Amino acid sequence: MLEKIEATHDRIKSTINQTPVMTSTILNNLTNADCFLKLENFQKTGSFKFRGAFNAVSSLSLEQKERGVTTHSSGNHAQALSLAAKMAGVKAVVVMPENAPKIKVEATKSYGAEVVFCGTKPNDREQTTQELIDEFGYTLVHSSNEINIIYGQSTATYELIKEVGMLDYVFAPCGGGGLLSGTAIATKALCPNAKVIGVEPKNADDAYRSFRDGKIYPSINPNTIADGLRTSLGSNTFRIICENVDDIITISEEQIVDAMEFLWSRMKLVIEPSGAVSLAGVLSKQIDLKSKKVGIVISGGNVDLTSFFEKIRKKIT
Amino acid sequence: MLEKIEATHDRIKSTINQTPVMTSTILNNLTNADCFLKLENFQKTGSFKFRGAFNAVSSLSLEQKERGVTTHSSGNHAQALSLAAKMAGVKAVVVMPENAPKIKVEATKSYGAEVVFCGTKPNDREQTTQELIDEFGYTLVHSSNEINIIYGQSTATYELIKEVGMLDYVFAPCGGGGLLSGTAIATKALCPNAKVIGVEPKNADDAYRSFRDGKIYPSINPNTIADGLRTSLGSNTFRIICENVDDIITISEEQIVDAMEFLWSRMKLVIEPSGAVSLAGVLSKQIDLKSKKVGIVISGGNVDLTSFFEKIRKKIT
Repeated sequence: MLEKIEATHDRIKSTINQTPVMTSTILNNLTNADCFLKLENFQKTGSFKFRGAFNAVSSLSLEQKERGVTTHSSGNHAQALSLAAKMAGVKAVVVMPENAPKIKVEATKSYGAEVVFCGTKPNDREQTTQELIDEFGYTLVHSSNEINIIYGQSTATYELIKEVGMLDYVFAPCGGGGLLSGTAIATKALCPNAKVIGVEPKNADDAYRSFRDGKIYPSINPNTIADGLRTSLGSNTFRIICENVDDIITISEEQIVDAMEFLWSRMKLVIEPSGAVSLAGVLSKQIDLKSKKVGIVISGGNVDLTSFFEKIRKKIT
Repeated sequence: MLEKIEATHDRIKSTINQTPVMTSTILNNLTNADCFLKLENFQKTGSFKFRGAFNAVSSLSLEQKERGVTTHSSGNHAQALSLAAKMAGVKAVVVMPENAPKIKVEATKSYGAEVVFCGTKPNDREQTTQELIDEFGYTLVHSSNEINIIYGQSTATYELIKEVGMLDYVFAPCGGGGLLSGTAIATKALCPNAKVIGVEPKNADDAYRSFRDGKIYPSINPNTIADGLRTSLGSNTFRIICENVDDIITISEEQIVDAMEFLWSRMKLVIEPSGAVSLAGVLSKQIDLKSKKVGIVISGGNVDLTSFFEKIRKKIT
């Protein structure tokens, strides 16, 4: 396991950002712990997703690279795959519902991908993606359930532990489970005694229930501000999480916003709601962290600030 | 000069945050330069002011420490001096106008200082401060014009150049001139061929005019969003700037907000308007930076986010 994680890191390290780790005296005082935040908001394209996407694209055969890649996503994976493909000289086609936020469409296009719109019904995305694969021979790069994606995401925690040494706990958010799976295998490979805690919004607790009951529950239209965590576990992420994660806890929407405000106001970091979820788990005090050394994976910082800056611009004119 | 800067850094380095330096591919592409951002938003109390304040407090005699310190400020210096004094076990009394924003009063109190309110007329602050000094024997720690403050601020650029090596240009914002003075002496001491550029809002261009005409013009109620840059130069900062700064340029309010939006949206950093001014100067392209190695001092990140998070909280309930 460790060898494969190291090989992955070697392959992608000159392209990804080796993101900073930060600490906060106030946070340590609040938690009575030594907290180390791994800041993937500073990753290329604004989230950890670039690690997995670039690793997946790098792992393609020459023939696959010539044909191109595709995925369906209106979130961070879309932007990550778009840039990863561009950097590898590979064509990328991203399928998005026709009602996707304009800012996400533009961001994905700005990194070089072609965007193909589909309907808004539950299976429209998969169907349109499959049609593209059938017609053009693109390779599907799924946002979380692929092994190369999971190994790519594992490099964040690999870097964290290499930088700060052995940890007692590592907290990561859970949506499709790609980041949590990667966090878990890196933690268990480098520091087997550390406990890995997945954190999920109460309003989107499918992974919590899946982990508890030993079977995958699909996530059905969950209502959470953490828009990156609305997806379901896949077969691979479910298996890896069951084998390597010690617990999954849930937190409220208010706790997510409180953690986000702490990160912005006290730590001066722009973090999206999904990115604040792991810290919300730590601050919820469901787990006794007294005197523990705690890694916290902060997943991304892509927030639409258009209206915030519109308001500021109105003030100065 | 270099010896004194090094001695200052040695004295304060275990207390201040040695803040990170960040780069951005997008920024380098925009400017055709190699840009290195020194991020003082990650300094204790959210701005570079802590460097100077802690150095000033550390340099007091035992007798002065026993009596305590005072200053008049409703901005970042108030919070910085408050925490610096607390960490040194020294009493701090901060004079603020009675209409100072509640969040700034609370922040200053939260770091441990006593706040004394004064009237809102031009000389009320100085008068109240002088009365406190006369009655209690406090030592005045001015926000920018004191030599120990200036040497404290110089450590930001000292760290920057020590980390990234020789630079061709260093950009810093200019308000009272403490940061620009410190930036200039550190740059000239470590890398004498580099040019130091001060950046000021057009709407508060007293330092620009003072530098041009060789005499101090007071700053009179300037209307700029960069609230940290509304103060006038002092005798020491004016002299050091005239001797060590190569040019002062001015930028518009729109350019400040554009730079701020770039820092938030693309670099995921919470930066206050004054903190974005140096980058606005770089992005204004008044100086040809093609293929140059450019240091940019980002001064702080204290923004009132109360209404931003109120709006988010309304959405989730």
